[in-house]
Amino acid sequence: MVDGNGLRGLELRSRISTGGVLELSLHEVAVPTPEADEIIVRVEATPINPSDIGVLLGPAGLDGAGFAGTGTNAVVRTQVPAAALPAIAARLDASLPVGNEGAGTVVRAGADVVDLLGKRVAVFGGAMWAQYRRAKAAEYMVLPAGATPRDGASWYVNPMTALGFVETMRHEGHTALVHTAAASNLGQMLNRICLADGIGLVNIVRSAQQAALLRGQGAAHVVDSSASDFTAALTAALAETGATLGFDAVSGGPLAGQILAAMEAAARQTASGYHHYGSDRHKQVYLYGRLNTGPTTFERVPLGFAWGMGGWLLRPALKKLGAETEARLRARVASELKTTFASHYTAEISLADALRPDIMKAYCRRATGEKFLVLPQQGLG
Amino acid sequence: MVDGNGLRGLELRSRISTGGVLELSLHEVAVPTPEADEIIVRVEATPINPSDIGVLLGPAGLDGAGFAGTGTNAVVRTQVPAAALPAIAARLDASLPVGNEGAGTVVRAGADVVDLLGKRVAVFGGAMWAQYRRAKAAEYMVLPAGATPRDGASWYVNPMTALGFVETMRHEGHTALVHTAAASNLGQMLNRICLADGIGLVNIVRSAQQAALLRGQGAAHVVDSSASDFTAALTAALAETGATLGFDAVSGGPLAGQILAAMEAAARQTASGYHHYGSDRHKQVYLYGRLNTGPTTFERVPLGFAWGMGGWLLRPALKKLGAETEARLRARVASELKTTFASHYTAEISLADALRPDIMKAYCRRATGEKFLVLPQQGLG
Repeated sequence: MVDGNGLRGLELRSRISTGGVLELSLHEVAVPTPEADEIIVRVEATPINPSDIGVLLGPAGLDGAGFAGTGTNAVVRTQVPAAALPAIAARLDASLPVGNEGAGTVVRAGADVVDLLGKRVAVFGGAMWAQYRRAKAAEYMVLPAGATPRDGASWYVNPMTALGFVETMRHEGHTALVHTAAASNLGQMLNRICLADGIGLVNIVRSAQQAALLRGQGAAHVVDSSASDFTAALTAALAETGATLGFDAVSGGPLAGQILAAMEAAARQTASGYHHYGSDRHKQVYLYGRLNTGPTTFERVPLGFAWGMGGWLLRPALKKLGAETEARLRARVASELKTTFASHYTAEISLADALRPDIMKAYCRRATGEKFLVLPQQGLG
Repeated sequence: MVDGNGLRGLELRSRISTGGVLELSLHEVAVPTPEADEIIVRVEATPINPSDIGVLLGPAGLDGAGFAGTGTNAVVRTQVPAAALPAIAARLDASLPVGNEGAGTVVRAGADVVDLLGKRVAVFGGAMWAQYRRAKAAEYMVLPAGATPRDGASWYVNPMTALGFVETMRHEGHTALVHTAAASNLGQMLNRICLADGIGLVNIVRSAQQAALLRGQGAAHVVDSSASDFTAALTAALAETGATLGFDAVSGGPLAGQILAAMEAAARQTASGYHHYGSDRHKQVYLYGRLNTGPTTFERVPLGFAWGMGGWLLRPALKKLGAETEARLRARVASELKTTFASHYTAEISLADALRPDIMKAYCRRATGEKFLVLPQQGLG
């Protein structure tokens, strides 16, 4: 992997042509020489997150995809629906790297940061489904002693999202939270944070098994949306916790509106007198995922007037919270990497495996509880 | 109407019983003695706004209503659907006065405000569908010379809402506006404000006639949602004005989501490079009316991530903007009462007329362009 002038390594790339053909493949590229403040990281572990699949597939699905070649020559091709192309005009014909986060070892370092050589670091910022990744200071964090790249691979997306929920709650003047798809890796992490920090958390799950899982992890408020008493149980939990902020990974269907309506019902229970327009306490739900890709629907009268729905995305949210807050959150992730912020993987695969039909179909299901870890140094010369 | 100790007058009241029977009728009540800082206004003109009908009928409709008695003895009764009662538990059995705003003459004044006796004032704050109304300093404004109670009756709801839209726009960092049901009295007012202040305004209307009406009033951007090129025309108008804030009186159906999607499409036209999650420019639509009472539905992918929907209500919005802003807006309303903020009425009626079946059916249609003015001193001894 080392040529005359330096390193070469494989990267997974996603490209959609002007004609709408999506092509996924591995490219061998020369690793650039780092600038004075940059490092080159040999990536040893990088997870597959739902947000990575968004970049990987764009608006395409796997139905009808063709799988050619094997190993590092594997190529996946499929057709993107023509109607979906205008919205992605700006990415057409671009060869996009994939992978938001990962961890590995520093193998090259610029003049200002030579002391980092040989250190283990975690990196965030795209292009992590690769053997090597150049990184600037803002993009990485040195892993604490004893933490392996496996421990550090998922250091950013889920931990910073869960912490970002809590900081957004404080920033916007709420005191407790609601979370949907709460049995996910992210949901379990949020539950551990809220238990540790004494924050009321209403966990909404979609099955009795998921409810039992969270209760087994100490969750005080777990509501099952598949149960017949869902609305009453949700309203009671909201009244008990005073939660007026929700983060919804489901987003499609009536769930976000049901949460706002239950918040309003809970607020009216404690209000005095009649207010024609309802409670003046602001109730907010952010839609941050898309487990249900259908349209979002809601009735307005049950919400009163003091409500909001909106999109929520990690990087812009952290930017709004400020650099100081982000630094504090990163430091907490580092110190609780193997406890609060531990991720659990159901399979470890190579870069080439990530393009195998059986494995792609598995991770593209985005099933709660399933999570893949890519080991980019594995199985390659 | 004057008894031994003071004034007596009629008030229109709305009461929903525990059993769900809505009853509308006129009550003769004693007018209280004003406190030192209070006045008693003889109400001479008070409009019927959609928001008044909300208090008047609650969740009931007029279908199946019974109309008994005539004149000041008229009583309207109808059944509220049982399912709608829990949400209005706090108003059950209460005799609610109706009517947000109006104008008249000061006929009694407390010791601190005796100089107001005989002056014409406009009042806001409920209970205006009445012959007399006690008012505190914050609730009224002395009408400018030459302005009649007819000129001043609709001084608050529409003018302050239209100005509130503009101030909310400034407060939240937007530079241009979108408005739906734009041919309404409120919409025409907003158009006059935006023309005078040089603010870009995209007027969304529902027919070619309404479009012609607004264009005849100088509107530069009018988009007809019933036209086949609606989406393209809306996107073009949004790109031209840079509007990223909308106020939606329709609220039900897909319209609010279509506006956000068109804002995002317009933002992407001017963005450089590919951003997987879309534009980072915040796009907001406030739902302030309910011309369409069906559920609101929207797709999320076309919106990107930087979007919000929410409720908007005049009084809380003004409270957020601050007392100084409200005072400035009221002063502007006073000085432009007969120009920018002029309302047009299609009929003038008495308090008793407001309970006549033909008239009730007409004003409860909430048709764009139709507006009723109640003259509470008319046709009564």
